[in-house]
Amino acid sequence: MGKINLRTLASQLNLSASTVSKALMDSHEISTETKQRVHEMARELNYVPNSYASSLRRKKSKTIAVVLPEVADSFFSLAINGIESVAREKGYHVLIYLTHESFAREQSILKDFQGGRVDGILMSVSRETPNGDHIKEIAAQGIPVVFFDRVCEEMDTAKITTDDFESSYKATQHLLEQGCKQIAYLSISESLSISNKRMMGYREALTDHNIRQYPSDIVACNNDTEQHLLAIKKMMQQKRRPDGIVASVEKLATAVYIACKQLGILIPRQVKVISFSNLETAPILNPSLTTITQPAFDMGRAAATLLMKALNKSNFSLKQESLVIPSVITVRDSTAQD
Amino acid sequence: MGKINLRTLASQLNLSASTVSKALMDSHEISTETKQRVHEMARELNYVPNSYASSLRRKKSKTIAVVLPEVADSFFSLAINGIESVAREKGYHVLIYLTHESFAREQSILKDFQGGRVDGILMSVSRETPNGDHIKEIAAQGIPVVFFDRVCEEMDTAKITTDDFESSYKATQHLLEQGCKQIAYLSISESLSISNKRMMGYREALTDHNIRQYPSDIVACNNDTEQHLLAIKKMMQQKRRPDGIVASVEKLATAVYIACKQLGILIPRQVKVISFSNLETAPILNPSLTTITQPAFDMGRAAATLLMKALNKSNFSLKQESLVIPSVITVRDSTAQD
Repeated sequence: MGKINLRTLASQLNLSASTVSKALMDSHEISTETKQRVHEMARELNYVPNSYASSLRRKKSKTIAVVLPEVADSFFSLAINGIESVAREKGYHVLIYLTHESFAREQSILKDFQGGRVDGILMSVSRETPNGDHIKEIAAQGIPVVFFDRVCEEMDTAKITTDDFESSYKATQHLLEQGCKQIAYLSISESLSISNKRMMGYREALTDHNIRQYPSDIVACNNDTEQHLLAIKKMMQQKRRPDGIVASVEKLATAVYIACKQLGILIPRQVKVISFSNLETAPILNPSLTTITQPAFDMGRAAATLLMKALNKSNFSLKQESLVIPSVITVRDSTAQD
Repeated sequence: MGKINLRTLASQLNLSASTVSKALMDSHEISTETKQRVHEMARELNYVPNSYASSLRRKKSKTIAVVLPEVADSFFSLAINGIESVAREKGYHVLIYLTHESFAREQSILKDFQGGRVDGILMSVSRETPNGDHIKEIAAQGIPVVFFDRVCEEMDTAKITTDDFESSYKATQHLLEQGCKQIAYLSISESLSISNKRMMGYREALTDHNIRQYPSDIVACNNDTEQHLLAIKKMMQQKRRPDGIVASVEKLATAVYIACKQLGILIPRQVKVISFSNLETAPILNPSLTTITQPAFDMGRAAATLLMKALNKSNFSLKQESLVIPSVITVRDSTAQD
């Protein structure tokens, strides 16, 4: 038998070419039994199915990947909901991959995509990620990448962010207006672009208000809950202890509350706290937490919408498509004046 | 040219058969350029690579799927961490799929696995899932399935659960001991096995203590946050309003706190609250929340460990391997006596 094509395969199976094609594309219209018959015959006849050729072109998996540090953070869980709302409309599957803030994991996950498993990637980089080489490698294979929240600045593709600098500036200014004299900043990473922007906003607000800055007021927290708590307790047991705190992510605000509870320090009387956070429990914490509320759902939606455009419009370029969606400060009791 | 095998492909490329095989298996040892060369030549020569045959046998993707309702719940985010800790040790990728509590989504996701995308499945079913037909279809293709937390009772495979009946019984008993006379139960599903077990534990505790039960004390909440809040507010505005509440999932406890805050009802003085919950903020809520703390991380680990055994030991059967890991009640202020 010469080269096997779809028609010869179909005639051997006594099925229509269309049914065989759908079976090979794993269509939901075709029964499992028929799919198995088709696959067995394809193997027997050494047929290279269209779906395999397609996967080489990497255009037909109808699947996008979301690569992000963790899901135990309400920003990310809300952003995922935004992403999935768009993917569902467009008939795409969403695969979620967690890096757990590890650069090595992130590299390994991106390597996995070289197999053509996904059509496009939405990504928020790990706190360790030093550069975008591993991402460029995938993008060079024609797989579009859109960043949300934690972006890789050096990559020339769409980035959906919030106004990190301005929000942090305003948060710091809010603490100053509430009477704070010494404000600490809790950071999660020294390499993350958003972390640096938030820190710069904090520092610029202090500079503009002629507040002296001490290096010990910037606490770099790593990815370990117990170590956060220790670092924050150490900060709060200093002689010169801060009377205001800007937390760059919500789990650090949780750690501040637990530290203060353990040390008997009263919020907001002895220290006022504001945090970047989408915690659903913010209004019912003791005291309720003042938050910089990020447009998490909308950021997810916007990122997914751009990726869908890149996947479905051949002349669409992601390069000009970055978007900044502002955050909103929600004032609650944790920054109240006495 | 006759039938193309790995050796002829390798010789055309001037590469070793081992390198070509690794390239086709998408090994991390092989460069992207080499993989592209190999794939191009394979296409040109109409070669059916081993990796395609493998994917037909569905044994080599080194990927497992986790199918679960949502990640905006600390039980699930901790369980994922447990699952990933095992997968990482064994060199497996983890794909997370969210059903958002929709049975239709769950069916669509399982259909996607018929393409041979994953080697095995860890699953916690949606609140709507009425039966396991869609799961049996996949299992019949030789893809092992292990359930955790929300199981499908009718399926004869491993199930990792906590002691839902006993925990709920003890939670209800705790409220009775703290002086509650009328205890409500907040449910999330009428079909979920765990939801029913939790409700039965609650009812049996009331029966054993000769407490009269009113149908209006069992509130079935759906999957919409605003509707939870409305249902709970309605319950709390009845003439006969409960003085104790057992919440079957943490987001319902959050809704109770918000409802009580809005209605000016004091916790624990006017109503005591206990919830199944792994919320990190439980100790810093106002008031701190008494929880039935599930062994979420350990349940994830146990489920993944069993799945790995099923994938890597040909004579291992999942049928005899169910496991119940007990929960622990952590008493805090939300159930305190005056």
